[in-house]
Amino acid sequence: MSCGISRKLFLELDPPTEEDNRSSWQRICDSLREKGCEDVKASAFVLRKLYPLCEEAGWKLTISLCYDGKGWDAVDLEAGDTSDAHYGFAVDLGSTTVVMQLIHCNTGEVVAQESAYNQQIAFGEDILTRIFYAHERDGGLSPAPDAGEQKCVYFPCPAMHKTFSEHLEELRLATVDTIIGLMERIAAKTGIDTKKCLSMTVAGNTTMIHFLIGMDAFCVFSAPYAVQADQPGFLRGEELDIPIRGYVFCYPGKANYLGGDIISGMVATDLYHRESISLFFDVGTNGELVVGNRDFLLCGAGAAGPALEGGVVKTGMRAADGAVQHICFTYADPSPESEERAGQEQTPAESLSPADTYSGRKNQETIIIGRNTCTVQLDVIGGGMPTGICGSGIIDLISELFLHGLIDLRGKFVPESSDAITFRPQEGEYAFCYAPGLWFYQSDIQEFIRTKAAAYTMMEYLLSETGLELEEVTDFYMAGAFGTHVKKESAVNIGMYPDVDPERIHAEGNTSLKGARMLLLNRDIAEELPEILDRMTYVQFGAVEDFLQKMTAASALPHTDLERYPSVKARLAMFHSA
Amino acid sequence: MSCGISRKLFLELDPPTEEDNRSSWQRICDSLREKGCEDVKASAFVLRKLYPLCEEAGWKLTISLCYDGKGWDAVDLEAGDTSDAHYGFAVDLGSTTVVMQLIHCNTGEVVAQESAYNQQIAFGEDILTRIFYAHERDGGLSPAPDAGEQKCVYFPCPAMHKTFSEHLEELRLATVDTIIGLMERIAAKTGIDTKKCLSMTVAGNTTMIHFLIGMDAFCVFSAPYAVQADQPGFLRGEELDIPIRGYVFCYPGKANYLGGDIISGMVATDLYHRESISLFFDVGTNGELVVGNRDFLLCGAGAAGPALEGGVVKTGMRAADGAVQHICFTYADPSPESEERAGQEQTPAESLSPADTYSGRKNQETIIIGRNTCTVQLDVIGGGMPTGICGSGIIDLISELFLHGLIDLRGKFVPESSDAITFRPQEGEYAFCYAPGLWFYQSDIQEFIRTKAAAYTMMEYLLSETGLELEEVTDFYMAGAFGTHVKKESAVNIGMYPDVDPERIHAEGNTSLKGARMLLLNRDIAEELPEILDRMTYVQFGAVEDFLQKMTAASALPHTDLERYPSVKARLAMFHSA
Repeated sequence: MSCGISRKLFLELDPPTEEDNRSSWQRICDSLREKGCEDVKASAFVLRKLYPLCEEAGWKLTISLCYDGKGWDAVDLEAGDTSDAHYGFAVDLGSTTVVMQLIHCNTGEVVAQESAYNQQIAFGEDILTRIFYAHERDGGLSPAPDAGEQKCVYFPCPAMHKTFSEHLEELRLATVDTIIGLMERIAAKTGIDTKKCLSMTVAGNTTMIHFLIGMDAFCVFSAPYAVQADQPGFLRGEELDIPIRGYVFCYPGKANYLGGDIISGMVATDLYHRESISLFFDVGTNGELVVGNRDFLLCGAGAAGPALEGGVVKTGMRAADGAVQHICFTYADPSPESEERAGQEQTPAESLSPADTYSGRKNQETIIIGRNTCTVQLDVIGGGMPTGICGSGIIDLISELFLHGLIDLRGKFVPESSDAITFRPQEGEYAFCYAPGLWFYQSDIQEFIRTKAAAYTMMEYLLSETGLELEEVTDFYMAGAFGTHVKKESAVNIGMYPDVDPERIHAEGNTSLKGARMLLLNRDIAEELPEILDRMTYVQFGAVEDFLQKMTAASALPHTDLERYPSVKARLAMFHSA
Repeated sequence: MSCGISRKLFLELDPPTEEDNRSSWQRICDSLREKGCEDVKASAFVLRKLYPLCEEAGWKLTISLCYDGKGWDAVDLEAGDTSDAHYGFAVDLGSTTVVMQLIHCNTGEVVAQESAYNQQIAFGEDILTRIFYAHERDGGLSPAPDAGEQKCVYFPCPAMHKTFSEHLEELRLATVDTIIGLMERIAAKTGIDTKKCLSMTVAGNTTMIHFLIGMDAFCVFSAPYAVQADQPGFLRGEELDIPIRGYVFCYPGKANYLGGDIISGMVATDLYHRESISLFFDVGTNGELVVGNRDFLLCGAGAAGPALEGGVVKTGMRAADGAVQHICFTYADPSPESEERAGQEQTPAESLSPADTYSGRKNQETIIIGRNTCTVQLDVIGGGMPTGICGSGIIDLISELFLHGLIDLRGKFVPESSDAITFRPQEGEYAFCYAPGLWFYQSDIQEFIRTKAAAYTMMEYLLSETGLELEEVTDFYMAGAFGTHVKKESAVNIGMYPDVDPERIHAEGNTSLKGARMLLLNRDIAEELPEILDRMTYVQFGAVEDFLQKMTAASALPHTDLERYPSVKARLAMFHSA
């Protein structure tokens, strides 16, 4: 079995005798060597514990070891066999939400999971505001090394008397406080002394890791995009003010926009070990992709736009209570075809991971499409009245609008197709009423189409760079909550996902967290990463010349080239014949 | 050139560009790799310094690296080329005196040296009192692991309310305070910011290292003599409360009584690298020896008695102001032979290392030996009136008393030989008046003979264990201040040193400090040590069956077997013929 980045080993030592009077520490090292653990480094903390612990425990002890990137460090010593009390943390350090799992490192079991808003939000909802807050903006004001620091006078911060590095420190502490808060909640919930936990793995984007360590992150978003450190490796918890016994491992990033969360996600899919070719896709406001196998890895990142996270779209919202997460149009007087479709589609819960189930209540509206009465079924998070629509709901809605002929290939409303389409004079555009008082506008559709076109084009571009055809990609891994909740067929219908067998598209959930957990439990991953990162070729889509051109081609529903979407073509034919 | 345990490397990096936007840390690592430094581990401290330092310094930086026993840790980053400001500390952590050198690690130059009494003395003059102070004495009172500690009620300590580990902590802090005090004195003297120094090497006996780290040291002196840790290796300065950037390396010990000071001393002589056979001897209250070469190493330790350090002997004192450090008898009406001898002997200063010069003033007394008038020339430390006699003085005195027939082979006074020998009724024994009011007693001689016999027997025993003859030992290294000040011929005359060519006997001075300095400047030594320690065979003289028997044979002047001392035999013949 592979070994994690921490170990707890129960040692039954022979007590010292005149004949064998090796030192206590030597006795431990020799015993560890027998167990295949060479060159364990002592710490003063452990050396100070040797006496009287060894004697009192009758020389039956448990030693805790943490891997520091080079070897094993002894970080704790306990009386008796406590090897089963072996815990570590996996953290998905998101810019909005931080998710933490307490892992039993011997079994891999997730003992507890908690999440919280990232306290950095106090310094800005969006990441750029936070970066500006922490960054000195005038080069001329930079403090001389080791000299007294200048005060922040250019940036309108609430506390004008603070220095730049005090700003950065505030961001750092907000990050650390979020993490500690989660640890405390987990401690309270499980009764486990989290301060005795050994290691922590953190996956986050490049900015998040910079803030966690206390590094200026302006570099992440400004040319030439050379960050401070993208492979910080193992840092002592103490140095980061994170109260664990050993080390915090931060997942390395490949580039400023392709951070540790994506590398962790790629690890979660294990795609880099397999012969078959896979594509990993994490799409939200930004899209990050990796395509490849054990022989090659190509990756890219670019802006997808805020539509998928409920931004821009007028009634858009995050996937929270009140959000419409799924929409299905069914004819009141069902034709056999539509009944068949409904049967296929009425299982959105299937694609939900147990950790992310929303208990949605169905809302129903009746509309007229052509000459038929159609029921608009809404799946609302939390089960109450709908108050807006989130990414997966939008995809369903556009897919349904398109299949039922309420919008055309370019996404333009066909006003005569349904009574639910109305010109809204205040906004000066057509809109579809998907729930009482909730309208989806023409501009919302266009915004969303830009996003889906960007997402599709990223995939297309990366595949074309490898010379691969879609059919050669065995598995498509969709990361994140979005990937979990989106109805695959809807995403195919609108041309956001490629038209492949849905069995080949996998909603992987929080891959960032999963990859963090996997590394906690498998040291080999940490060892492999530098080499894997070297093998990866990075494309920044924003710098690709014909990207916008390709995007334009992908801005039709499902695509200008309908031949790429045979299943959608067939579905459209079915609806048109009906 | 071999590399020390710390490095300062000046790096001239290319600024980041769109084409080369590696992270700042990667840029540094790549540059280090070009200089042959692989896999340098980052610290949060250094990562936080990257910005704005790199930019402001125009990407011309100096990075400080410390070896941690497994690889290189980045511990500091400075603007510009500060690679010449590369300092470290070598420390001889003696139980009485702590000597510290500030070393320029690029040149090896000793920039400053300071010494101070070990503040542990506040807890006991002798080491055992300190050990008892720190140790819980009643097993039943041992605190349960992680439970509230019991108060110290058995040991009569001034602060009865303290817990056992508070006692140990007091000893630890006394040690650390001594070290910090020396650092501060060196900082004040040199103007060098010692907090920026990188590494520290410490050589001390097993108890001293235990106290430095904060480990109970009762084990050092109690069966089965299994200590807590004898190879603590590299510990972070921070963990030990020693304000340096990097690591403190504690010299490993071989056994409870053969500690890091001796291993360091052995390293100082380099005997384990040579083909010729050497003997290293550090004699004081205890004697520690190593004999061997690159193929074998035998070592031993045992009690020599306090006589060499001025203890027990009634007017004995440490080598401080007022101590007679050398004595020479010269006939007022010189016979050619004695003039020749005086000529040979009047160069005690020759054997003094520059670091240890005492400015001794000659005192003179006139005595009658037989029918001749003889001048007793005294070399007094500090040049004032003599107030006592230290080890090297005692050796001269006994040598002169013996050569001039004032004591016999067994060390017994021959009262009729001189007017300076008087029966002292108060003490009930004969004594020799070596200075006005200062007497050397029969019992002092016997005490001293026991010590010299112990020292000789240790050497003899260790050689006999190897099957070597004296003549096969090329070099004899005498460690410590004692070895530096003792007149070799006197030590041979009384049978303390073996009768070999004085050229082969080397007074090495503070080898403990020298070995510490050498390791600071040569990482290979740290790497070699575990293997060297494995190769060493340890003999505890106290456990050798026929040791006392052998000691009895060595209790004559110079030895029961006079054939072992041909030069002394010849000298005696000369005097007797005179």
